[in-house]
Amino acid sequence: MATRPIRILGLDPGLQHTGWGLVEHDGFRLRFCAEGVVSTQAGDDLHHRLLTLHNGLAAVIAAQSPDEAAVEHTYVARNPESALKLGQARGVVLLAPALAGLVVREYGAMEVKRAVVGNGHAAKEQVQAMVRHLLPGVTFKRADAADALAIAICHAHHRSTRNAFSAAVARAAS
Amino acid sequence: MATRPIRILGLDPGLQHTGWGLVEHDGFRLRFCAEGVVSTQAGDDLHHRLLTLHNGLAAVIAAQSPDEAAVEHTYVARNPESALKLGQARGVVLLAPALAGLVVREYGAMEVKRAVVGNGHAAKEQVQAMVRHLLPGVTFKRADAADALAIAICHAHHRSTRNAFSAAVARAAS
Repeated sequence: MATRPIRILGLDPGLQHTGWGLVEHDGFRLRFCAEGVVSTQAGDDLHHRLLTLHNGLAAVIAAQSPDEAAVEHTYVARNPESALKLGQARGVVLLAPALAGLVVREYGAMEVKRAVVGNGHAAKEQVQAMVRHLLPGVTFKRADAADALAIAICHAHHRSTRNAFSAAVARAAS
Repeated sequence: MATRPIRILGLDPGLQHTGWGLVEHDGFRLRFCAEGVVSTQAGDDLHHRLLTLHNGLAAVIAAQSPDEAAVEHTYVARNPESALKLGQARGVVLLAPALAGLVVREYGAMEVKRAVVGNGHAAKEQVQAMVRHLLPGVTFKRADAADALAIAICHAHHRSTRNAFSAAVARAAS
C-alpha cells in the first residue's frame, strides 16, 4: 500500500527544552532516524528565547525533511502562570511545522501512552522502555527527546489505523 | 535630540483577535499612523489559527515598517486552560517582531494604564478616552486595536524617560 516511508517529526514543547524525534514509517515498520532537543537560556528575554526555539525547529525541519508533525497537547494541571509560559513555547512549536506546510496533528499525553504502552496511565519509564523496544538502535540523551519519539510513534499508529479504515471503506465500496 | 521619528508597533495578543496599533514618536510628540486587528477562525485547527496570526502580523510588519514593538504582558487571573490558549497566541505574537529583528519590549496591563491614564487601575473606557486625546485623528474599529495603541503609547513614554535619563547621565559625565 505505502510506497515511500513517511517521515514523522514528534515534538514535545517546552520553553527551556523542546524535544524532537524523527521516525520513518512504511505502513508496517517503524524506523528511528534522529532525535534532539532545542534549548533556550533561562536568563534571556522571552522573545529571544522564542526566536531561538523557532530558529532551532526551522533548522531541524530543513535538515530532516519530515512529511508530517505530531505535537503533544499537554494536560495543564499546574497554575495559570506556568500554563501561560508553556503555551508561549507551544504556540511557537506548532507554528514551525505549519509554516513549513507539514500536516500537523495534536495528541494528548494519555493518548500517546495508550498508543505506545497500551495504557494511558503508564509511567514515564515504561514509555521510554517501549520507545527503546519499538525503535531498535534508538539513542536519546534527554527524556524530552524520548517523549517526542513516543509522540511520533503515536501518530504513526493513528495514521495506520486511519489508512486501514480508509482501505476497508474503499474495498467495501468497490 | 531625536532626528527621525521612531515607529512603534503596539500588540495586544489574543487567539481570536490580536489588536495592533502603530504610532510615531519624535521624542516629544506622538502621531497616530495605523491600527487593525488580525483575527482567526474559531473552528479552525490550532496550528492553522497560529499560522494565520503569524502571517497576518508578518504582513503588518512588512507594510508598516515599525522600528520597535511593545507587547502587553497579560495578567493571568483565569484558569490554566485559558492561560495555555492565550500563551499560544502570545508566543506567536512575540515571535513575529523578533523574527523581523525589531526591539521588543513587554509591559504589564497596570504599567500601560499608568503610562496612558496615570492610574494603574483605570477602566477600559478611560484608557480609550486617553488614547483618543493623545492621538488626535485616531480611529479604531475594535477595542483590541485601542489597547494595542495604548501599549505603543506606554512604550513611547518609557523610551522618553529612558532617553532623558541617559542624556542627564551623559551631561553629568561630560
